[in-house]
Amino acid sequence: MNALGLVSTRLCAGLMGRRSAVNLPSLRFSSGMTLSQIDEEVARLLQLKAQLGGDEGKHVFVLKTAKGTRDYNPKQMAIREKVFNIIISCFKRHGAETIDTPVFELKETLTGKYGEDSKLIYDLKDQGGELLSLRYDLTVPFARYLAMNKITNIKRYHIAKVYRRDNPAMTRGRYREFYQCDFDIAGQYDAMIPDAECLKIVYEILNELDLGDFRIKVNDRRILDGLFAVCGVPDEKFRTICSTVDKLDKMAWEDVKKEMVNEKGLSADVADRIGEYVSMQGGQDLAERLLQDPRLSQSKQACAGLTDMKLLFSYLELFQVTDKVVFDLSLARGLDYYTGVIYEAILSQTIQAPVSMPAEQNGADEAGVSVGSVAGGGRYDGLVGMFDPKGRKVPCVGVSIGIERIFSIMEQKAEASSEKVCTTETQVLVASAQKNLLEERLRLTNELWNAGIKAEVLYKKNPKLLSQLQHCEETGIPLVAILGEQELKDGVVKLRNVARREEVDVPRVDLVDEIKKRTLLS
Amino acid sequence: MNALGLVSTRLCAGLMGRRSAVNLPSLRFSSGMTLSQIDEEVARLLQLKAQLGGDEGKHVFVLKTAKGTRDYNPKQMAIREKVFNIIISCFKRHGAETIDTPVFELKETLTGKYGEDSKLIYDLKDQGGELLSLRYDLTVPFARYLAMNKITNIKRYHIAKVYRRDNPAMTRGRYREFYQCDFDIAGQYDAMIPDAECLKIVYEILNELDLGDFRIKVNDRRILDGLFAVCGVPDEKFRTICSTVDKLDKMAWEDVKKEMVNEKGLSADVADRIGEYVSMQGGQDLAERLLQDPRLSQSKQACAGLTDMKLLFSYLELFQVTDKVVFDLSLARGLDYYTGVIYEAILSQTIQAPVSMPAEQNGADEAGVSVGSVAGGGRYDGLVGMFDPKGRKVPCVGVSIGIERIFSIMEQKAEASSEKVCTTETQVLVASAQKNLLEERLRLTNELWNAGIKAEVLYKKNPKLLSQLQHCEETGIPLVAILGEQELKDGVVKLRNVARREEVDVPRVDLVDEIKKRTLLS
Repeated sequence: MNALGLVSTRLCAGLMGRRSAVNLPSLRFSSGMTLSQIDEEVARLLQLKAQLGGDEGKHVFVLKTAKGTRDYNPKQMAIREKVFNIIISCFKRHGAETIDTPVFELKETLTGKYGEDSKLIYDLKDQGGELLSLRYDLTVPFARYLAMNKITNIKRYHIAKVYRRDNPAMTRGRYREFYQCDFDIAGQYDAMIPDAECLKIVYEILNELDLGDFRIKVNDRRILDGLFAVCGVPDEKFRTICSTVDKLDKMAWEDVKKEMVNEKGLSADVADRIGEYVSMQGGQDLAERLLQDPRLSQSKQACAGLTDMKLLFSYLELFQVTDKVVFDLSLARGLDYYTGVIYEAILSQTIQAPVSMPAEQNGADEAGVSVGSVAGGGRYDGLVGMFDPKGRKVPCVGVSIGIERIFSIMEQKAEASSEKVCTTETQVLVASAQKNLLEERLRLTNELWNAGIKAEVLYKKNPKLLSQLQHCEETGIPLVAILGEQELKDGVVKLRNVARREEVDVPRVDLVDEIKKRTLLS
Repeated sequence: MNALGLVSTRLCAGLMGRRSAVNLPSLRFSSGMTLSQIDEEVARLLQLKAQLGGDEGKHVFVLKTAKGTRDYNPKQMAIREKVFNIIISCFKRHGAETIDTPVFELKETLTGKYGEDSKLIYDLKDQGGELLSLRYDLTVPFARYLAMNKITNIKRYHIAKVYRRDNPAMTRGRYREFYQCDFDIAGQYDAMIPDAECLKIVYEILNELDLGDFRIKVNDRRILDGLFAVCGVPDEKFRTICSTVDKLDKMAWEDVKKEMVNEKGLSADVADRIGEYVSMQGGQDLAERLLQDPRLSQSKQACAGLTDMKLLFSYLELFQVTDKVVFDLSLARGLDYYTGVIYEAILSQTIQAPVSMPAEQNGADEAGVSVGSVAGGGRYDGLVGMFDPKGRKVPCVGVSIGIERIFSIMEQKAEASSEKVCTTETQVLVASAQKNLLEERLRLTNELWNAGIKAEVLYKKNPKLLSQLQHCEETGIPLVAILGEQELKDGVVKLRNVARREEVDVPRVDLVDEIKKRTLLS
């Protein structure tokens, strides 16, 4: 990449921002740029381009993260930590252990697990040795782990990043690198008990994160397969029709039907019959009713799914979560490996695209849209068996919390609020008002560190007291321990409360206890 | 990969185990396998191979993680969490914020930063779009982050996995995917103050991890460069000779000299002059002495480095860490980007290769070897400028804790000790002694979850009381809440202390408080 490469990238971003300013001035530029200002800016940038273009020998880097990825700054990390704490507490409350797996797997481990989504897998370059791919989710590595270690029973959570070469939509929290927070229960148990616990967990987490109203859609692959069978879909088309049904949350029925007929080769009759079923929503009563449906009750699979659905709802009743759970026959989920109950949680609230972002990055259709699914999962009883040399099955059910969309909402909340996000935990800054006291400051700081106090000291020989106090104001350090010649002579330290601007002399031997006492109270 | 591929892999592992059994029977097989048993086993495996070989249609997976990587099981995760907590507390005690960056960067971001180690970078496959590489360390992404966001001042830590296509030596804790725990201070400050804090941090962490004795070697790139200059190394060979000197911790001087002369083209005289200097070790006194050295004092660079070394030691004195720090002129560090002080911490203890591992995986030369460096870092004042379009410099100094080697030691410690590692935090299991109480168990469990109690329930309709109690014993759950018809009638729950085998009836309304009280005390 030469200098020109950089400039054209940067110019593009500049011009894009400008184009959208012309289309949507009020949305994009709060300062209200005029057309002549835009012309000026374009001229300035073109001049810059000419200048840089002449400077061919110099290597200039493109300063960016890879497409669809982002850094987390300290404020975002503070929010991330808060979200993780809520989720991990919930997982631990339900008795889960945790594991970790490598970020890449043998390519073949991922092959044949994701259906049409397989094209989104990141492969590593063949540099000799094994063919590797970045993990696409945490479920397949979990199944590989179980088979490899011959584990037949475990309740585990796993929080880690996964990778998908999807079209990013960053303002909606859709990235190519993103966190998943997975909770899974593996083992041969009585029907629907672990499944119900997974839904309880989704309910608890979304409640505690305080993201507004939400719904959890539930369905069952066996009901879908039975439904396809009785509607006249040929067996070999079940999975691909399932993928098409899965688009109902983003597309109108008419378009989904078109895809079924034109691309997937179903007759319009068959599609219409499917359309009737997948428009149904309800609770335990709907499962009851469908068990009496003259067509659907012909399918053994559908009946098994519907009977379990009734049982599931009875447990959800005990867990007091039925107010948010709806049995929805349009829920299909994209992945191949589900074999039974499936579910997905959707927030009711929409998020606003930030005004500062150019339209192309943001997507004109994305402003104020629903964040969509924030959790999903289901039962996958066959996946572990795919890895076991003898095909031994380990039934599993689990849920994955899609944390990035939740981060997006929390970050917007934090930005909107006036409350300051604290990014360090420092209790005290060791300062001095006079010159030539660096060594004394370092000595005291060392004493505090050794006593477990979170302490900072400015890395300057002779910093001004004002700049030391300013550092505290800016970063939220509540206390300053001030040293001067007199304090050193008297064996005391002046302890200042930054917020109240109050100072008091504390005997040096009592300083640690005093700081502990004060920062415990605050 | 067909069925045969798998079999040959497994057979290999089998035969390798066997081969080592012949060599080292007492080490490998505690049960003491005889030669005839081995023959039997080989015959059995060959038969299995023949069977599987005939079954060509069936796809069999190679069940393994990618070379040089590993899973963490729940016990290992518990240890990892403990280590991270110690490290993060220390970083926070020193006032650090935290950030995160993507696992991959634009390939060009990493280009030209790692010298001869660049060949170890993992590239992603070109699937259209940008060329990407997995991060090789956390320092280069940090510098990219600073330049991109125009940050001139920050103290941050970053704990994340990095990737190197190195020769793995897993028993020594050398992996291709491994954690780094980095702490860095960016900003224009007075000399050696942040540098001294980095060393203080290494000292604190290694002390708190309780890994036995350690030493921290310190040197300065300017001293090395000055030394090379006065010894007669041509300028353009400084970096490559630096890489060779860096091997002194693994190779004898004679071999290092050979590489300098035969591969790098130095004259034997020049090499010998270098050899004299790089054998020197000491403290502040050595810096003092070298400032008077007739040859070395000719180099301005060396003098600047030596003066700073003296200053550094005076701060380390204030931080009370000089008992472990040694000024060692043989320390070079491989990476290109260092510009000033460099350091590396080495544990004195050796670790034992686990007995259960076949010799091939383990490396005959690896048993009981030193774990080597567990922390390293230094000053890199030019790196951020390499990313800034205008070349603006942001001076940085930092340290990276090599956590995998520390994990290896902690895991071996845990295995050797009889203490059980607890992998869940569950406070109570909700159980019943009688049949048909599943719904009542679920109802009570739900009450406990809602009250914030960590509770489990077995996913069986009618589990035996014994198997419920066994689950507690195995996983370390301290309490059991037992429900029966009588308890339900009386509005009580039988609360059992698993360790003491004591039971007491607790009114259901008081149960939550009672569990909280009991698990706080334990």
